[in-house]
Amino acid sequence: MATISDVAKYANVSVSTVSRYLNGKGYVGEKSRKAIEHAIQDLNYVPNEVARSLSTRQSDLIGLIIPDIKNPFFPELARAVEDTAFKYGYTVILCNSDEQLEKERHYMQALTKKYVAGIIITSLFQYESNPISNIPVVALDRPINMDIPTVTTNNIEGAKIGANHLIDCGATKLLYMKGPVNITSSEERLEGYLQAIQGKGIESHLIESPFEFDAAEAIAFEYLQKNPSINGIFASSDASAIGAMKAALRLNKKVPEDLQIVGFDGIQIGNVVTPTLTTVAQNIYELGETATEMLIQQIEGKTLPCTSVHINPQLIERDTTKKEHKR
Amino acid sequence: MATISDVAKYANVSVSTVSRYLNGKGYVGEKSRKAIEHAIQDLNYVPNEVARSLSTRQSDLIGLIIPDIKNPFFPELARAVEDTAFKYGYTVILCNSDEQLEKERHYMQALTKKYVAGIIITSLFQYESNPISNIPVVALDRPINMDIPTVTTNNIEGAKIGANHLIDCGATKLLYMKGPVNITSSEERLEGYLQAIQGKGIESHLIESPFEFDAAEAIAFEYLQKNPSINGIFASSDASAIGAMKAALRLNKKVPEDLQIVGFDGIQIGNVVTPTLTTVAQNIYELGETATEMLIQQIEGKTLPCTSVHINPQLIERDTTKKEHKR
Repeated sequence: MATISDVAKYANVSVSTVSRYLNGKGYVGEKSRKAIEHAIQDLNYVPNEVARSLSTRQSDLIGLIIPDIKNPFFPELARAVEDTAFKYGYTVILCNSDEQLEKERHYMQALTKKYVAGIIITSLFQYESNPISNIPVVALDRPINMDIPTVTTNNIEGAKIGANHLIDCGATKLLYMKGPVNITSSEERLEGYLQAIQGKGIESHLIESPFEFDAAEAIAFEYLQKNPSINGIFASSDASAIGAMKAALRLNKKVPEDLQIVGFDGIQIGNVVTPTLTTVAQNIYELGETATEMLIQQIEGKTLPCTSVHINPQLIERDTTKKEHKR
Repeated sequence: MATISDVAKYANVSVSTVSRYLNGKGYVGEKSRKAIEHAIQDLNYVPNEVARSLSTRQSDLIGLIIPDIKNPFFPELARAVEDTAFKYGYTVILCNSDEQLEKERHYMQALTKKYVAGIIITSLFQYESNPISNIPVVALDRPINMDIPTVTTNNIEGAKIGANHLIDCGATKLLYMKGPVNITSSEERLEGYLQAIQGKGIESHLIESPFEFDAAEAIAFEYLQKNPSINGIFASSDASAIGAMKAALRLNKKVPEDLQIVGFDGIQIGNVVTPTLTTVAQNIYELGETATEMLIQQIEGKTLPCTSVHINPQLIERDTTKKEHKR
């Protein structure tokens, strides 16, 4: 089997040039690059990576399984994962599961066969055990199993912050737009909201809405039409908050004068709509970065200091709420 | 070396069950799955994929190099690439280049070492030749070299459609917000715009703006303040169109009554802002799907019917323009 020295000799370059080429680090001129590529081909030289994954049964690939990269929450998350992976010398395989268990399982098996070093997954489902033996997994945004390291936003705390802000800005009749039933973060946010309003004499309405603009608009429109005295909406996602803003506009309600609105997520679009959306912003980048670092620590055999990390969200006050007045 | 039959015997399941497990197709029960995984580990069995990539020097991995998944144009593109790859049995490695040549080259070398079967790239740069010998490449959204198969939007035609729509809706004093100089699509759109207004007695202003909300808002604000008679803006991206909308709002200009605005791209956010944005929508999903199919055809040794595909964009009339009146 050809060695790196054979390649260097054949290509008439130094071993360190071949090494730079193979590691993708440092400068390799166009001419040398071509010569090395020819040498590799002619000598049937096997660069380290694939050969190494065959012997160690581990590559430097990380699988990222998310519901849908088109959902505005995930591009920033995926970017953080890729940036962090890149920093540590790993590359990322992107998989969209569409929240289908079968597709998730298919991807997990497919990734296993590629000897991925680890998997980061955002899943709707609860797994009985680590879904893949011997491969480190980190659950991101939503826990999937008690034994699997998890990175989520502190949703309960976030919902308290959002609800308290609405109340401090003078809203007294609140509509809480909760998310789908089976999503943990959605249940946690509801819990935080209920804790926040307790004992404060707030009139509270509760509806369920998917995390989608159009569906949320239709649901909010119908509810606001029947309950015109509502003067504050706390939506458990920015997408539903923006849907509610559109419903308010169609009903000729002024935001924030007649109706104050707070979202949850902190996606870019909230800063682009008019008025700009007050929201409980998750630290999306930090979520992705932390999950990737926790995964790489496991891959490299290090002990995690803790297996469940809750990252605090932060209120961003914009124009869909009035100024807080001290009470 | 262990064979698939050894694994089946050791795990006490049928060969076809092991095969289903290895191919990730069809049902494999939890108990059998675990038994197979143990057998694979104990017998040191090498599933086909990595072994095959070692012998054929080709995997079923496709590299996707894009500037930034956070740019709202790319999630839908990435989704289309991943969907199409999945359909044909390939998986996608996501790489964000930040439009840095060095990062692009690094990824290309890294992907080559993983024996990727092919690469789809959206790059700012012109490459002298196929950047990677022996690996099929498709240029997406922007051409990188005459010899490399390319999928782009028909930008000239799209810009004509957008400019003509503004004129047909009664705008007479147009501001064209062109994109950065070195992007081909940006130059093509300018060409289409100039062709459309020629000989129509239109007063035309031209400024350059990056494809970013905030920068575009600042640039449009300053220009509109100095040139208050402008009654139509054609922005070469939705991001700059939305920036211009915010500038108009700050200047108390009513859209579309005082100022009509047309964007280019068709990203989701254009349908969420108020008023909703009239735009020349690229068929983003079809761009990604076509590029992936062209790449896979090359990977599988088929001849491409044509190497340069221009996909027609389509006008979406929303609320930032008045209705067209026949002239």
